[in-house]
Amino acid sequence: MQDQIFQLQYAMDTFYFLVCGALVMWMAAGFSMLEAGLVRSKNTTEILTKNVALFAISCVMYLIVGYSIMYDGGIFLSGIETVDVAGVLAESAEAGFDGDSVYSGASDFFFQVVFVATAMSIVSGAVAERMKLWSFLAFCVVMTGFIYPMEGAWTWNGADVFGLYNLGDLGFSDFAGSGIVHMAGAAAALAGVLLLGARKGKYGANGEINAIPGANLPLATLGTFILWMGWFGFNGGSVLKLGDVASSHSVAMVFLNTNAAAAAGAISALVLARIWFKKADLTMCLNGALAGLVAITAEPSTPTALEASIFGAIAGLIVVASIITLDRLKIDDPVGAISVHGVVGFFGLIIVPITNGDVTFSGQLIGALTIFTWVFVCSLIVWGVIKAVIGVRVTEEEEFEGVDMAECGMEAYPEFGTIKK
Amino acid sequence: MQDQIFQLQYAMDTFYFLVCGALVMWMAAGFSMLEAGLVRSKNTTEILTKNVALFAISCVMYLIVGYSIMYDGGIFLSGIETVDVAGVLAESAEAGFDGDSVYSGASDFFFQVVFVATAMSIVSGAVAERMKLWSFLAFCVVMTGFIYPMEGAWTWNGADVFGLYNLGDLGFSDFAGSGIVHMAGAAAALAGVLLLGARKGKYGANGEINAIPGANLPLATLGTFILWMGWFGFNGGSVLKLGDVASSHSVAMVFLNTNAAAAAGAISALVLARIWFKKADLTMCLNGALAGLVAITAEPSTPTALEASIFGAIAGLIVVASIITLDRLKIDDPVGAISVHGVVGFFGLIIVPITNGDVTFSGQLIGALTIFTWVFVCSLIVWGVIKAVIGVRVTEEEEFEGVDMAECGMEAYPEFGTIKK
Amino acid sequence: MQDQIFQLQYAMDTFYFLVCGALVMWMAAGFSMLEAGLVRSKNTTEILTKNVALFAISCVMYLIVGYSIMYDGGIFLSGIETVDVAGVLAESAEAGFDGDSVYSGASDFFFQVVFVATAMSIVSGAVAERMKLWSFLAFCVVMTGFIYPMEGAWTWNGADVFGLYNLGDLGFSDFAGSGIVHMAGAAAALAGVLLLGARKGKYGANGEINAIPGANLPLATLGTFILWMGWFGFNGGSVLKLGDVASSHSVAMVFLNTNAAAAAGAISALVLARIWFKKADLTMCLNGALAGLVAITAEPSTPTALEASIFGAIAGLIVVASIITLDRLKIDDPVGAISVHGVVGFFGLIIVPITNGDVTFSGQLIGALTIFTWVFVCSLIVWGVIKAVIGVRVTEEEEFEGVDMAECGMEAYPEFGTIKK
Repeated sequence: MQDQIFQLQYAMDTFYFLVCGALVMWMAAGFSMLEAGLVRSKNTTEILTKNVALFAISCVMYLIVGYSIMYDGGIFLSGIETVDVAGVLAESAEAGFDGDSVYSGASDFFFQVVFVATAMSIVSGAVAERMKLWSFLAFCVVMTGFIYPMEGAWTWNGADVFGLYNLGDLGFSDFAGSGIVHMAGAAAALAGVLLLGARKGKYGANGEINAIPGANLPLATLGTFILWMGWFGFNGGSVLKLGDVASSHSVAMVFLNTNAAAAAGAISALVLARIWFKKADLTMCLNGALAGLVAITAEPSTPTALEASIFGAIAGLIVVASIITLDRLKIDDPVGAISVHGVVGFFGLIIVPITNGDVTFSGQLIGALTIFTWVFVCSLIVWGVIKAVIGVRVTEEEEFEGVDMAECGMEAYPEFGTIKK
Repeated sequence: MQDQIFQLQYAMDTFYFLVCGALVMWMAAGFSMLEAGLVRSKNTTEILTKNVALFAISCVMYLIVGYSIMYDGGIFLSGIETVDVAGVLAESAEAGFDGDSVYSGASDFFFQVVFVATAMSIVSGAVAERMKLWSFLAFCVVMTGFIYPMEGAWTWNGADVFGLYNLGDLGFSDFAGSGIVHMAGAAAALAGVLLLGARKGKYGANGEINAIPGANLPLATLGTFILWMGWFGFNGGSVLKLGDVASSHSVAMVFLNTNAAAAAGAISALVLARIWFKKADLTMCLNGALAGLVAITAEPSTPTALEASIFGAIAGLIVVASIITLDRLKIDDPVGAISVHGVVGFFGLIIVPITNGDVTFSGQLIGALTIFTWVFVCSLIVWGVIKAVIGVRVTEEEEFEGVDMAECGMEAYPEFGTIKK
Repeated sequence: MQDQIFQLQYAMDTFYFLVCGALVMWMAAGFSMLEAGLVRSKNTTEILTKNVALFAISCVMYLIVGYSIMYDGGIFLSGIETVDVAGVLAESAEAGFDGDSVYSGASDFFFQVVFVATAMSIVSGAVAERMKLWSFLAFCVVMTGFIYPMEGAWTWNGADVFGLYNLGDLGFSDFAGSGIVHMAGAAAALAGVLLLGARKGKYGANGEINAIPGANLPLATLGTFILWMGWFGFNGGSVLKLGDVASSHSVAMVFLNTNAAAAAGAISALVLARIWFKKADLTMCLNGALAGLVAITAEPSTPTALEASIFGAIAGLIVVASIITLDRLKIDDPVGAISVHGVVGFFGLIIVPITNGDVTFSGQLIGALTIFTWVFVCSLIVWGVIKAVIGVRVTEEEEFEGVDMAECGMEAYPEFGTIKK
């Protein structure tokens, strides 16, 4: 009978990973819609292609090498694909069926693989409307197969950073990846944007900043809602265990806090935009919700609901200020990804010690610095090599005509009598 | 071992709430897309902003005061955020591990909070294309923080109605909220529409009714499918327990009946529209599906699949007739929300006694009357105060130009060479 | 206590079916968006109407007769709607609580019914832009109420094919329905397309093939992501049991392999299209992902992740070649459904013996032939009768003007200044 109980718990924890993983996979659709809604129509097919392709490449690369690098697994998941039922039961019996997290390794891989794609999705928005498609995909191969798994090993697998220091020992913690996933994606994006330069016409000769409105705001809103929903899997699954009272309560608090932070972020960004720009700026409201989600991701289990709301509200304010500031610095990020995931990702990391006593402020700082430096420097090098070999930017004419025809040979909305922007 | 079994059941019921809650949260995206698809393009950004903001405000208000009013909980969920594992186990042992519904209070809150947003989402569609954004959001604060929680306390928490009578004692039952959520939302919407008046050009000087087609029917269809999917969580989670044979079978029947009612409603509305208007009217078909869903919501667990189909089919007929009738009465509801959620919500309530012997027809009538009167009167007062203080309607010029530019400062589709309507 | 364990397992397996079923239902939205994105704007309302109506009709027909035909159930599910808890427990106790798959019959029906709709969804895309709406819906009634359930009985219920032979005995296996669902849908579509003929202007007088681009590629991409996500339920639920170590691990491998095959298919199709057409063809990339999903559906549990990736990659190549070939044969399939679901569905069937030793190559061939012949011949007859009685094709003028106004009386995008195509 003890065996049966154990089997039920194993099945429950496995299913929990799979449901959460499916929700995280769904975030790929969210990023696609968000980015497709925020670019101009002439660049929409290309960003859709990028998003589908980057998700696919992430899955293949993590399968082939990424997971091995991050978790010392075998090549091609050879240890994951089968389960020795009798062995699992015997081992568990020996440990006294203590309810420690035991689940199918395949479900763990499935959950992990969709995180890699999330990190990469962040990049595509920031470099939109002027980067060569195949240069982007080449970067994607290195990012998902090497850069991300390396920092993932240091943070979520407890490996020493080049044998020098151990982030866990320093009191670093990043529950679901404000830093490991979101700030990492933003660091790679920033490196790309710096090498790539701004879109033509974004910044005028006399210092003026020209708004380049997105072509389809319902898509951007849909994308935000998809991300909001998928984030329940992203954060909720990161408890890594469901099958007992304490764990399941923790998962429930994570859901509750994730939702509360997003809600508060949407409101604070909307109100700040109303005060600042005199208009209820929908895109700021959407970015505020996403900022709330990013901020709570580093630690969604320990704050009270009120704390989560406050963190989210502050994140909503930060993201508006950050987007304005980056524009003043002429760092051209069409969808605000660097602000949402990078600046707010860092904010998420440094507030963890407020509610989690096991985490130190210095640990968080060192961890953030480690992740950012590693990803940013590696990315600069990789983008630089790609630039030297095949180039990263489309020609001026292609940019003017839109990358859709140049790269993909088809328009996203061929019939919609587009007003050329 | 008994403890372990209990822990598994606790975890399972908690997870079930969270999955269902995530599906209900997803309905917010459904309402957004449905409404964005059914308004004109010049009012699309604003309705998207409304939908994101109302969801966010609902979450914050229910967290701060709503849940306390409805369930006598502490301020800021203070009793919910932690779990005393040993206490829960001891209490359960004393009760003989009888399998009564025991789950994380945080998961219950998460499930409840997304219901509030659903009620509020119903309002935004009905008042679309002419209401001031911030007046709407002010109403949202009162509706989600006070009006809804009060009637929720009378119905789902068994509180006496102002100490006068008890709906439960009178044989009232509303399983997942045909009345408590849907008709309540419609009552608030009706009050708003009456104070607001019709859109310019909707009703001609000589009594003619002008169709104002929605700008983006794929979005409206997507929204309907999202709502259909989310409704499995809405109704399925309202069984409130999963972890035994009888409960899980009940959840399964709820899924099956919810789907059957929606399917039958879509067909009957489509056929009636074909006969009546000579065309296969997509928007009526969508409203028919939603009507089927609303109708079955008051009691999805006791009907057979055939009964659920019949109820859904009748609801599909009612909604078409109701939409036509409201238009003749010059009650201008751009998305048909009052018909779908109000008229059909009432229908859903009064058919419960047919399949559920514990419920009385008189109880349902009194319950429906109580909910409608409370929400309608309160809403009239609140809308009236808002009208007196800041106004509820945009200027004629703003309405003509579209509320997007006036309220949000950005167009939803800036490049799509819009044919002004 | 044994009873309690059994009840938990029953509840878990039931919930697993319901979650997977909800994901498969979601695929209806995926097909709708995919098809709405790939047709011209003048035919969009009609294809949306078709997709909502076909889902609704499938649910009603399978409820009334389909399930009975396929599984010898009672009319109107009379055996499914109640559960005899004591009886279930007694029976299970007698069997020694051996953990055999025991779950609510209602959850099984819910899971099965959404499969029927999937099969039918495949048809609507292939016959788009020129078929009469009500002729299509008439076919839908027969397909979901009779044609599909008959072949479903032979394959998934083990019935003899007209008393002649038994597919299971011949070594046939189709895990989640590469043949039973996908190839079957494609066979019905092919019969319809052959009777219907190509769209006007698709094939020129001098043999030229004219591209007719879809009106809204973000929708098509969204549809693909929805299908990708829903497929986790489609394949994952087809393990039919979750609640023990071996089963839950199998479900996890199915999720992992389903994802891997889709990812590899997207990449291989994108690369082949790039080489062949010199452009990163988004629609081919989307079809490649879907091809990977269809290919792995016949057996997602036995391949390693590497094998699943290879199968998916080959499927991505096949689908590109097939779409080009069908166009050369002047078989006009606007969305590529016959290639994705038919050609690749067949490929999926014949590769099963490579990883599953219990399955024979000859069994797969005979099974594929049986399914295809049955569905194709029946469909030809039904389409033929419909053609004779009410016609299958809209008039030339209606086709030129678009079926939206003719059939539905409303445009999908009335304001978007459409460039007539």
